[in-house]
Order: sequence, then C-alpha cells, then structure tokens
Amino acid sequence: MSAMSAPTELAPLPRSLLEKAVADALAEDLGLVGDITTNATIPADATARALLRARRPGVVSGLEIARSAFHALDPALAFEAVCADGAHVLPGDTLAKISGNARAILSAERVALNFMGRMSGIATLTRAYVDAVSGTKAAIVDTRKTTPLLRAFEKYAVRCGGGRNHRIGLYDAVLIKDNHIVAAGGIGKAIAAARAIAGHMVKIEVEVDTLEQLKAVLTHRVDAVLLDNMSPATLREAIAMVAGRALTEASGGVNLETVRAIAETGVDLISVGALTHSAPVLDLGLDFIE
Amino acid sequence: MSAMSAPTELAPLPRSLLEKAVADALAEDLGLVGDITTNATIPADATARALLRARRPGVVSGLEIARSAFHALDPALAFEAVCADGAHVLPGDTLAKISGNARAILSAERVALNFMGRMSGIATLTRAYVDAVSGTKAAIVDTRKTTPLLRAFEKYAVRCGGGRNHRIGLYDAVLIKDNHIVAAGGIGKAIAAARAIAGHMVKIEVEVDTLEQLKAVLTHRVDAVLLDNMSPATLREAIAMVAGRALTEASGGVNLETVRAIAETGVDLISVGALTHSAPVLDLGLDFIE
Amino acid sequence: MSAMSAPTELAPLPRSLLEKAVADALAEDLGLVGDITTNATIPADATARALLRARRPGVVSGLEIARSAFHALDPALAFEAVCADGAHVLPGDTLAKISGNARAILSAERVALNFMGRMSGIATLTRAYVDAVSGTKAAIVDTRKTTPLLRAFEKYAVRCGGGRNHRIGLYDAVLIKDNHIVAAGGIGKAIAAARAIAGHMVKIEVEVDTLEQLKAVLTHRVDAVLLDNMSPATLREAIAMVAGRALTEASGGVNLETVRAIAETGVDLISVGALTHSAPVLDLGLDFIE
Amino acid sequence: MSAMSAPTELAPLPRSLLEKAVADALAEDLGLVGDITTNATIPADATARALLRARRPGVVSGLEIARSAFHALDPALAFEAVCADGAHVLPGDTLAKISGNARAILSAERVALNFMGRMSGIATLTRAYVDAVSGTKAAIVDTRKTTPLLRAFEKYAVRCGGGRNHRIGLYDAVLIKDNHIVAAGGIGKAIAAARAIAGHMVKIEVEVDTLEQLKAVLTHRVDAVLLDNMSPATLREAIAMVAGRALTEASGGVNLETVRAIAETGVDLISVGALTHSAPVLDLGLDFIE
Amino acid sequence: MSAMSAPTELAPLPRSLLEKAVADALAEDLGLVGDITTNATIPADATARALLRARRPGVVSGLEIARSAFHALDPALAFEAVCADGAHVLPGDTLAKISGNARAILSAERVALNFMGRMSGIATLTRAYVDAVSGTKAAIVDTRKTTPLLRAFEKYAVRCGGGRNHRIGLYDAVLIKDNHIVAAGGIGKAIAAARAIAGHMVKIEVEVDTLEQLKAVLTHRVDAVLLDNMSPATLREAIAMVAGRALTEASGGVNLETVRAIAETGVDLISVGALTHSAPVLDLGLDFIE
Amino acid sequence: MSAMSAPTELAPLPRSLLEKAVADALAEDLGLVGDITTNATIPADATARALLRARRPGVVSGLEIARSAFHALDPALAFEAVCADGAHVLPGDTLAKISGNARAILSAERVALNFMGRMSGIATLTRAYVDAVSGTKAAIVDTRKTTPLLRAFEKYAVRCGGGRNHRIGLYDAVLIKDNHIVAAGGIGKAIAAARAIAGHMVKIEVEVDTLEQLKAVLTHRVDAVLLDNMSPATLREAIAMVAGRALTEASGGVNLETVRAIAETGVDLISVGALTHSAPVLDLGLDFIE
Repeated sequence: MSAMSAPTELAPLPRSLLEKAVADALAEDLGLVGDITTNATIPADATARALLRARRPGVVSGLEIARSAFHALDPALAFEAVCADGAHVLPGDTLAKISGNARAILSAERVALNFMGRMSGIATLTRAYVDAVSGTKAAIVDTRKTTPLLRAFEKYAVRCGGGRNHRIGLYDAVLIKDNHIVAAGGIGKAIAAARAIAGHMVKIEVEVDTLEQLKAVLTHRVDAVLLDNMSPATLREAIAMVAGRALTEASGGVNLETVRAIAETGVDLISVGALTHSAPVLDLGLDFIE
Repeated sequence: MSAMSAPTELAPLPRSLLEKAVADALAEDLGLVGDITTNATIPADATARALLRARRPGVVSGLEIARSAFHALDPALAFEAVCADGAHVLPGDTLAKISGNARAILSAERVALNFMGRMSGIATLTRAYVDAVSGTKAAIVDTRKTTPLLRAFEKYAVRCGGGRNHRIGLYDAVLIKDNHIVAAGGIGKAIAAARAIAGHMVKIEVEVDTLEQLKAVLTHRVDAVLLDNMSPATLREAIAMVAGRALTEASGGVNLETVRAIAETGVDLISVGALTHSAPVLDLGLDFIE
Repeated sequence: MSAMSAPTELAPLPRSLLEKAVADALAEDLGLVGDITTNATIPADATARALLRARRPGVVSGLEIARSAFHALDPALAFEAVCADGAHVLPGDTLAKISGNARAILSAERVALNFMGRMSGIATLTRAYVDAVSGTKAAIVDTRKTTPLLRAFEKYAVRCGGGRNHRIGLYDAVLIKDNHIVAAGGIGKAIAAARAIAGHMVKIEVEVDTLEQLKAVLTHRVDAVLLDNMSPATLREAIAMVAGRALTEASGGVNLETVRAIAETGVDLISVGALTHSAPVLDLGLDFIE
Repeated sequence: MSAMSAPTELAPLPRSLLEKAVADALAEDLGLVGDITTNATIPADATARALLRARRPGVVSGLEIARSAFHALDPALAFEAVCADGAHVLPGDTLAKISGNARAILSAERVALNFMGRMSGIATLTRAYVDAVSGTKAAIVDTRKTTPLLRAFEKYAVRCGGGRNHRIGLYDAVLIKDNHIVAAGGIGKAIAAARAIAGHMVKIEVEVDTLEQLKAVLTHRVDAVLLDNMSPATLREAIAMVAGRALTEASGGVNLETVRAIAETGVDLISVGALTHSAPVLDLGLDFIE
Repeated sequence: MSAMSAPTELAPLPRSLLEKAVADALAEDLGLVGDITTNATIPADATARALLRARRPGVVSGLEIARSAFHALDPALAFEAVCADGAHVLPGDTLAKISGNARAILSAERVALNFMGRMSGIATLTRAYVDAVSGTKAAIVDTRKTTPLLRAFEKYAVRCGGGRNHRIGLYDAVLIKDNHIVAAGGIGKAIAAARAIAGHMVKIEVEVDTLEQLKAVLTHRVDAVLLDNMSPATLREAIAMVAGRALTEASGGVNLETVRAIAETGVDLISVGALTHSAPVLDLGLDFIE
Repeated sequence: MSAMSAPTELAPLPRSLLEKAVADALAEDLGLVGDITTNATIPADATARALLRARRPGVVSGLEIARSAFHALDPALAFEAVCADGAHVLPGDTLAKISGNARAILSAERVALNFMGRMSGIATLTRAYVDAVSGTKAAIVDTRKTTPLLRAFEKYAVRCGGGRNHRIGLYDAVLIKDNHIVAAGGIGKAIAAARAIAGHMVKIEVEVDTLEQLKAVLTHRVDAVLLDNMSPATLREAIAMVAGRALTEASGGVNLETVRAIAETGVDLISVGALTHSAPVLDLGLDFIE
C-alpha cells in the first residue's frame, strides 16, 4: 500500500450522506418547477464564473457539500476549492472558484451557502472555544444537541473547528444520568446493567452533580465521568478524586468567558451544547466575476 | 359546514411532513441498537411523568412535533399540551405534560427538544423583531436562508413568532436580482421574460440597490420591490417613488437596533435572514416528577 | 455573465425530479429480475439503432425524460434529440435517435414511451386549445386535476403546449371557493383571513358563480376572480364589472367547441381540467433500423 | 378456517402500495405549508359532511384509495363506502359518505378525486369493451402502456371494469417480439433461449404479424400467440391454425367499433392499450351537505 | 440489430436494484462518520492493489455487486473481474483485481464480501444439488424462503449455481395449498377461482400430499403439481398418474443425500428451501499486494 | 419514575427499524398485485387461527418482527406471544398464537417466518457457542460479517442467543489491522492517529498475529487486542503478556469443536463470524387450527 502523504486528521464524510442531503435540500428549494426566475431570465447556455468568499472571519466547513450541490445541478461545472475545511479565513478571502453553466450556479447557490454557512458557523464557534483553552489539556467536545437530520454534518463541522466528538447517538456509548440511576436502583446497579448489555467496545460514562455522587461512582470502573454544573473549585476537587481512573468531562455553565477557568482545572473534556445549537451562521457569499 | 370557533391564524404543518422528519431524526439518534443506556437501566414496564418546561423566556413553537416524537416511540404515551404554539412563556412555565412508558419518554426526549428548541428559538427571535416594529405597518418576513431540510419547520416557526413568510422556494415566486437583469439584457426584458413564463398566480418582485434602478423598475408593473441595503432616508425616498404601486420590502443591515428606524420609513416588509440562520436555541428541558 | 442566446420560454424540469421518476418507473417495469425476454434472446453485447418517431401529429413533450430512461439503463447509450419539446410533429417525423446497447434500448423503451406519450398527449391537447383561442387575449391554463405523482410532468407538458400553469398545489396560491366563504362567515372575512395568513408573495383568487357574488368580491382587493360556469354573455358582464381590477378566469363547460366563444368575451384566462385529466396519449413508437 | 362468504373476484391492492401512493400524492399537493386557503378560512374544529357522487355514468374504482387519502389527513374521519369497486353508477349516485373534520375533507378532496376519477375512467372504458364483446369467449386485457408509477392502480382498475391483466411487467412473463427473434437468430432459438432462462412458472407468448410467422411459431411449444394487426378474416385463419395449442390474443386496430368483430373470430384475448393510456377521467365530485 | 455473441443464460440484475442495495448496505456499515480506523491511519491519497480471492472451492456469484460497492466509494477505482458469475473456483483462485484509492478499497471491502460471500454460498450449494441430479431430467428450483430484502440477489445466486427460479413472489404465479382448498370449498372451486382472477399469463400449481388429492387435482387443468413429502416410490406413482399433463415438482425431505433418488423418479423439478435459507457463506477474502 | 420489574437484558430494537424492514419485505413478496392465490380462494371476511410452532429445538428471536408483519397486513389481527425472544424451545412448542382475518395471516406468513427463521437460527447457533464455553469467563461476540441490510436484526439475534455485540459498524469503534499499521508507518503511529481523531467515547482495538506484534502494541495504551489465529498455547502466552491491561479477543479457527479450548485460555472474548454468516435457519411453521 502506498503512502504518499501524512494522514490528515480531518476525514471526509461518507459521500452518500452528502449526496442524499444535498439532493433533499435541492428538492426543498426547487419544488416541482425549479428556479423560475433564473429559468426565465438566464439563457440556457449562458456561462458564469463566481467566487465563494467569506464576508466575516471564520473557519471553513463544508466545501465538499458545496461542491456536491453545484454538481448535482450540473456535473460539468468546475468547482475548485482554494482552501480546505478547517482553514481560517478573513473577510474577502476566496474559498472556492466555480465556473460553468450560469443557471446551475444560480440555482444551487442558496443550498450550497445554507449548508456551508451553518457548518462554518459551527466550526468558527468551536475554534473560538478551542483557542480559549489553548495550552491546557482540555478538549472541546460537542453534544447531542444538534439540528435534527443534520447531526453528521454538524459533528463534522465541530471536527473542522478543532473540537472532538462526544457520542454520535444513543447507540454508540452509554451515558448514565440521574433518571437512569434512580430507575436502576442505584449507581452500582445502573453501571452493572449497562456493562451487562453493552458490547465490549462501548464506553460507559456517568453524570454526577456532586462530589458525593462522584465518590459513589468511583467505587465502580467507568470510562468517564461527566461533572455537571460544578464550579472550578469543585471541579478541581473532583478531578483530584478521580485521579486518572477515568476521563473527566465538565459541562454546564460553559461559555467563552468561563471556559478558560474550567479548562485550567485540569479537566480532560469540556462539552458545549452551544457549538451546535446556537452558533450563528458564518456569512459567506457568491460573487460573480467577469 | 359547522363553524365552532374562529379560524386560527396559525395553521398546522401537514402531518406527514412532521412524521417523516420525526422518524428520520429518531433514526439518526437511535441507530441500529437504540438507546442502550435507557434499555439497560430502565425496566421495560416502568412509567414516568415529565413536564416540558421553559428555562428561558421565549415563544413556543413545535408542540406537535414534540408530540409526534414521543408518540413515534410509544403511541400510548399521554402528551398534553398546556399552551399553544405562539404562546409566550417564562422560565419555569410548563409547555406540556408527558406521561407513560419511561423508556419511550427518555429515548425521545432529545429529538423532541432539539426540534422545539430550534423552532422556539426562531419564534422567539421573530417575536423580538415583530415587537420592535410594533405600531408601524411593517411586517417582519423571513428568507430562504434556512437550515437545509428544515425549511417547512423554520418557516412555520417564523409564523409562530408573528412573522410572515417570504416565498417558500425558488418555485413559488419570482425574485429578480442583479445577475438576472444583466443576463436578460435589462430590467424590462427580465420582467417581461418572467411574466411570460410564470403562471398568473405567481408574483414578481425585483431587487434594487439604488433609486435609479428603482425608477427603471417602476416603469414596469411588478408586485413588489426589494430595497436592498438602503439607509432609512433613502428608503423613505424610495417608498415615496413607489407610491403604493407595489409592495416595498427592505433588507440588508437589519438588526434589533436598526429595525425600528427602518420600519418607521413606512416600508411594508422587512426581511431578516437572521431569523432562521442565526437564532440561538430556546432553552427547554424535561423535568421528571413523582 | 455570458449571454449566448435568447432565453427560452421552456425551462427544463429539475433534473432530480426526472431521475427519481424514471428510476421508480423502471423499477415498476423491471421488478426483481428484469426484462426476461430481452435478456434471454438478445446477446449482452449486441448493439442497435432506433428512431423515436411520431405515429400521429402532435406536440412533443418529455424528450429529457426519455433520454433519462435510456441512460438509466446504460449511461453509454447515445441519445440525440432531433427536435425540442414544444415542437409540432407529423406522422413519421423523427423525434430522437438512440443507439448503443440493444438490451438497454429494448428494456427502457416502454418507460420512455409511456412518459412521452402521456406528456405529448397533454401538450397536443393544450396546443389545440391554445390555437382555438389564438388572436384573443385569453391564455389557456391547467388545474390541479392532474395524475397523482405526475403533477410536475403534466404541468410541464401544459407549458410545452403553450398553456400556462395555474397554482402548483394547495400551498402556493389562495383559491377561495364556496365552502371556504361559508365557513369563514362571508366573502370579506374569508379574504381577510387569507390575507392575514398568506405571505406577501401569495396571490388570492376567489371563485364566484353569479354576478351578485362577483359584486361582493369586488368590494375587496383580490388578484383574480374565477368565473365558474357562466355563459359568454354573463362572462362579458362580469369582465365589465371587474374592469381590470383583477385577472379574470373562466372555467366550467369548456371544450374545443366552446372555448373560442369564451375567449372572445375578453377573459384573461380559461382553465381546462381536461388538459391533464383526459388527454389521450400521443402515439409514438420506436423503430429499429439497420 | 371459517368461510363466511363467497370469494370475491376483486381482490384488493396491497395496503402499503395504497398508503405510499396516497402519501406521495398528498405531499405533492400540500407542499411545505399545506392547504393555505382552507387553513385560513375554515376553523380547526369545524366539521362537515360530504357525499362523493358520480356526475357521469360509469364504473367505480378506487374507493379504498379515497378512504386512505381522507384518513391520511385525519384518521378519525368517517368514510362509508355506499357501493363497491366495480359497481356501475349513474349521475347523482352516491359512492361514499364522508364526515368529520372539515379541513381534512377539503384538503384531501382533490387527491381522492384525482385517483378515483382516473381509475374509474379506466374501469368505465374497460367495461365498455367488455360489454361490447359480451357473449363471445374473448376476454379484454390490458397492456404495459400504463401511466408511469401507477401501474398497480391502473391494472386494478382494469380488473374493476371486468378486464383481465396481461403481464404486470417485463419480469413475470416472456413476450417475444420481432426484435428478439432477429437478434436470437430465429423463432426457434428465441423460444429455446427463453425456456432455458425463465422459471417453470413463467409463460411464453410470441408475437406474429403473418400466418407464415405463426406457422413457424407453432412448430414450438408456446403458451400464447399474439396476433398483431390482423384482419378478422386472417384472425380466423390464425385461430384455426393454432387449434387450441396455445391461447390466442389479438391486438392492434382495436376500438369500440372494431372489437366485436374481432371477438367473434373466436380469439381468446383482445388487448387494448387505450384502456390505460387514453381513458378519459370519470367525472366525480364531492358535495357538501347540511 | 447486431449479434456479436451468443446470448448468455445468466442475465444480470437490474442495475438500480444493485446500486440501491449497495448504497443501503454501505450506509449500514459507515453510519454518520464513516470508517474511522481507515480515515485515521490511511493517507487520503494512498493507493493500493488487492485481489479478491476464494479461500474455499465454490461457485461465484455477485461480481457486479462487489464492483458496485467499490465504485460507490470511489468511481475511479479499477475493478477487473477475472472470472464470471457462475464460474467454479478453487482455493487461491483470483475472482477480481481491484486497484486505486486505498481508503475506498478498505472501507468497501466488508460490504462487497458480505454480498458475494452469501450469494456465492447459495450458488455453491445450488451447484451441489444440480450436480447431484446430473443426468436426470430434474431441475433444482428455489422457494420463497429467502432472506428478507435480498430475494432478487438470492434468486440470482440460484441461477448462478445452475438452479431455476420458482415464482418470485406471491404475485406472479398461483400456488394453491391445503388452506386455500379448504377455504375455497374444494380443489375444483379453488382452481376455478384462481383461473377467474389470474391473468392469462399466470400459471397455476397445486400442492398435494397424497395420491388421492392428486387424482382430484388431475380432473382439472393445471400447469404444475407440487408433490409434497412423498417417498420416491409414491413420487413415481404420482408422475405416472400425471402422465405429462402438468409439470411435476417434488418438495420436502430434500437434502444432498436424498436428492438423487428423488430425481431418478423422473420428476421435473425439485424445490429446495435450504438453497437460500441455510447455505453457509463461501469464504472469500481480499488480499493486498505490492 | 416507577420501577415495576427488573430491567431485562434483552432490549428491543427501535420500532421504526422493524416496521421499515417489514414493509420492505412485504413489498418484495406482494409486488403490485398481492397474494393472488389467497385473494382468489379465501373469502375476504374469512377468519382463521394459527399457531407459530417450532419444528426443531432452538432459541427464539424475532417475535416482535413477526407481530409487525402480521399487523402490517391487518392491524386488527390478534398476535399473542407465548414465549419471549431468547427462550429455548423444543419441536412442537408454540411460540405465538395468531387469529383474525385469514387472508392477512396467509399473506404475511412467509415474511414473518423468513425473518424469525433466520434470526432464531442465529440465536440458536450463538447459544450453542455460549453453552460450549459456559463456566469460563469468555464471552461469545459477533462480527461485521452480517447479511447486508439486516445487521440490526442479526446483532439483535446474537444478543437473544446470549452473545455479545462487537462494534456495530466502521463508525463506532476503531479496529486497527495490518493494512492500517503498514500505511500509518507503524503500530505506534496508527494508534496515535486513531486516538487523535476518534472521540473520547470510542474504544481502540488492535489486531495482532504474533506475540512480537502484541509486544509492540502493549507499549501503547489500547482498550482491546484481537489475537488472530493463535493456538490455545500461544493465546495463553498472549493473555499473560497483556496482564489485564486490555481486553483480549480471540478469532480465527473458531468452531464448536475448538471454542472450549480457546475459552479455557482465559481470553475475554471469542468472536465468531459464523454466527451471522453461516447459521442455518431454525425450522418454524404456522399451523392452522380449528
């Protein structure tokens, strides 16, 4: 097997996921008759050249989806990515060059921008958190608070921003919360039940709100503990109690003002729901050139 | 035909749209094995009662989707909406009461909250804009800058917040922009071409950046003009030029600080991309009760 | 943006609509084992040339769908359209030339012909109505009485025949009928309710059966009035009453014998359900040549 | 196993076929926002009663699809079929009674009528052919010239009209035509190849244009021969030649004027493409009652 | 029409069936994030060459599906089939050569092998039965006891092994069993009812357990009789009774030890559920080479 | 939250997975016309009672899928499970009782049996392996060698048999094999790359063939090691070298004769591809009763 370049840390999404989402989004925008404005005013054989540009500083995510959107309308369009997902761009920077059939470019424009704007917005906010904790050992991780139907894309965007993914869904890791513990009849029983069912490749994390709860959890073997809504001081105590026996994750009350202090407690992971549920779009635009 | 109550202004989404989106979102979260934590720790016949509550003030949107999510996992669950979409709620207010099989409630919780949080966030931001222009004749309208695959839900959320919908897609109205005019060979030709193709039930709007462009447009019959990136003073001039011959819509540079001044120019409509592309989630939660 | 040719009035259908419908139609015909006759008798590498020809005079519609059907079975087939959708053809005229793998041509033949025959039948009937009113100002428009699942294709075929499209579905325009008026508590209330809900780009039409109803409607602002089942004399009166304040549409009792007289009343639009619900197929065939 | 009534000859379509087609047709009509006219003007809790009535004489087909359409919008609607598929109705006859939520009835009306009108049109035309050959041994059969995506429904409608189904698709029976014979290197080779591949439950039919071809075919064992475009006199000769060794099917030049003479030749089957490709809709309507 | 080679008896599956199944199987394996091991460790531009090899002797089936799986991940991969479906291979034999992007090869490997292993296992077992009856007139046929969702592929695999297909589903042939006879009120009534409903291209088979039942069946005209669970001696009697008036099929108690004796009774067909419900996988592997 | 019974270790599959698979399987069997034999011979209102019974000893899996299949054809059918998935049954044991519409029972029978037969076959084989290692600490685990499109069902069946699931797909765990190590430039680099990309809830396993490789792996932190094709003696050495620092999994050359000796080496897990790729069906049948 050849090895022509170093592995990149940013692996692409499965192609069929991309193409399915793009097809559905185009169907949503084109309906049963298509882009009636463009079809009325632009000759069928007109060509155009356009630059996909940033209007605000940020981190790029979703270039392959944009490419897929343009190609879905015309496979012959030229789409040249000028940068890569994960790149930091400044206002005016060109992300990609598109040229070819003018109708196809205009009709796919909004779908391409809607995907990339949202994904780049998430990547940009993620990067802000990652930068805020730089120099600490803490990784920024996402949650399941994603836009319905777009989880694959939003978790990918978090990776583009330098964040790490928490579990993908309810199926690939165990996260035991208060309700589970109560229903199972105690922390020990909940952990044992999970271990009895989950496959050997599935990790188990337990959420705790207090040091007392943490103490109880630590009498069992778990892969990670989620320390919810603890002050930095309490976090430090908790991390000392864990003493490396499990990964430590902080959540709750995390924002760009508080995240540094949380990271400096030595916690391994800080999960931030806002990465995916409240990131503003990154303003991108398509500029037609001569 | 009976007429038992006044028509509501907030018509529901087509049921099958709801159910399809909910099914896909649940599939995204449950994968091939389901909620392994809940299945391991909660007895199959355990029951629970929970309240869907607001943690922040805002406007509610998406109750039927939440109901659909819970019912998708167990049709026998009781879901009682305490308020209606469009209601303003305060922190701690209960939106709905859910009771029945505990596993079903826990496994559907995140999907229900992800839909409702996003939709209520949009409704809340829309309401803020609507309130900001109250007393003027301006309506707040959305754009096509929606989350891919969720346009129906986001445009519905805008309606919940008191906003109005702009066109739904590229297919149901004509919006002629600069590129179309250039390619068609002038404003007149673009309008004529659109009128020749579009059905008689399709409205035509033209976007202009300057008063000169507006003057040229007004020599033709159009249903609306989009006045892009104009100052309030210029907007006033533009509206005077239009003199009621077309609806006037302002866009560009609209935010909660500027929107009142724009509305006071007498413009009919103010379109705000941020309603759907940058609304933060409304924080909602599920509280289990005895 | 380049402008190499005049805009055509006949914009194509969204490609993915075409490809999805073609794939489903082929699946319907091929089942789980495919074309057993062809597979048994035609060598896998046999090639053939065929001409798609008209057997009756008519108007062509659906060439891109035929192309898509043949390409779905073998992307390497050559499909050369000799005329364009909207062209009038005579018996024996060639519409397209197909050459390449013989199995693919034979197995896709029926699906291609079923689409094109139906669409061309609709285009042909539409053209007959359009010709019958030529010289008047009346446009021929379709209705929602389309074949389930094929609305996009049938409305496109109407455009190929020179007709115009009425609303596409229940969602893109308001059409207030008697039941709506009764339930809303009167014409005024119905129109007001529609205006309050529909976006600003949505037109409103009201159906009336009598001049009294028309009078009531005209005290409100509407975009169009549907004059149902009126004699030419009554239509003239109605059009005089409207006096240009709204588009006028005639419907009911329209056939090729009556349509001219209706058009000569000066009505703007004549809607004809038969265009899509009762057009006979246009007889087309595939002739294999040496 | 109980046996409470005689088997009916009109077996229903698979339920999921019905429900899928209805869901897709409703989605086509409702789009992303639904029936905006009805939602604006009809109170959410208004109820109505309506009668599905024939406006022309004909044969009913599709009652279960109509039921499914109404129930898709509101499972609580009452839908009472007054007659059965296959019944002959006169203008004014009631086919079904619908009562319940007024919005649901109005929003599903067109989809229900579009299905039933087309299917009943096919059943009506089929019945006309069946009646025209009554007293002869000839059965009227359909072809593969069906509306794409609706084959199951159209072949069912043919059964409702008293017709018989030819093969369902390319996969369930062998029909050897001229091109197959040429490519296979002769009739004998074509038949042998088909027999070698097709399963033992698959019948083989061969199309011939002349008595010479028929003679060649009859040196082999086949299940049926398709006698294409033969005059009644030639048909009689052909049938005499076959002498009961295979089913005989006439096709080509069949219409309501010619079909009786063709049937009187003693042919077993007469296939009529027009049944499905050119049947006009049967005019049905929904009348709201107090 | 050209005729460059003799028709093959092994016609391919419809392409879209293949591609849909492959896409779904890849989605099943790749989930929302893809092959995380490969993406982490293999450079994006690494290339590889691999041989698809047999590890056990057997009959090949599914090469086009394997090709489709690799091409779904990278259309630029080279996939060269070295043998054809239906070929007998020995351990170490190469079935196909694949070269190109290393990630694509590794990520598609398991899906390709899972399809081909199962299909080749079925073809191999079928061939064993076919060989066991060689020299007799009996054909080996499959049943409807197939893996849900994979019937098209498994019936194709049976053909690859030299077997013949029984009916494809419940829709393409009539098979009257005991329950049907009881409910219809006797064999004669059941056959008559079937003949009255089924199209003229549909064959009718009746299952019998005893010679008495067979005698009753033979007073009617049927295309085939299924002789269930009869000893070879009884089979001989049965076949003599049938005397060529119908195809004879044996089923029940068929295995590789008993099948020869059954075939030697002179029966036309022997159906074997185990072909599809219990064939072990054929062990295939992908070997990477320098 | 109530806790009425102990958590079961056998959590059900997500309902929508079940219903989708059942709908697709029924569509596969019913085609465009349905069960023509049953529809012809069984009166529409006939009722029947049937017992789902084992014909061979084995372990039950798939009762909910059978229920879903019968209910898909008639929601009013009564389906009473007499035992639970995971139960061991003997020939003649009743698994479920079904009663109601006779047509629905007969038409759904094969789909229900095809699912349950396969799943119960897998559960039965799994139980045989589990029993064979009873008393040791070894768990029996499955692989990704599953039937395409049925992985969820087959992994569930493994759980029914007392087995454990390995990773679900390529996305939920890292499994580094030889090719990955070579391409990454060594074991250390491969593990580091995986750790850099995979989320913190993702476990990492490395496959080794020799003790030398194992030694290299153990200089890094991994969650599990896959000891491929090692003799029991070598396995013991390997397990001693690991010394509890990782889970140990044996694979290769595992069958019912060898599995006990492998388990007695003290290995944690034994993975068996045959569980899903080569389990014969469990013979089940539906017996109609008076």
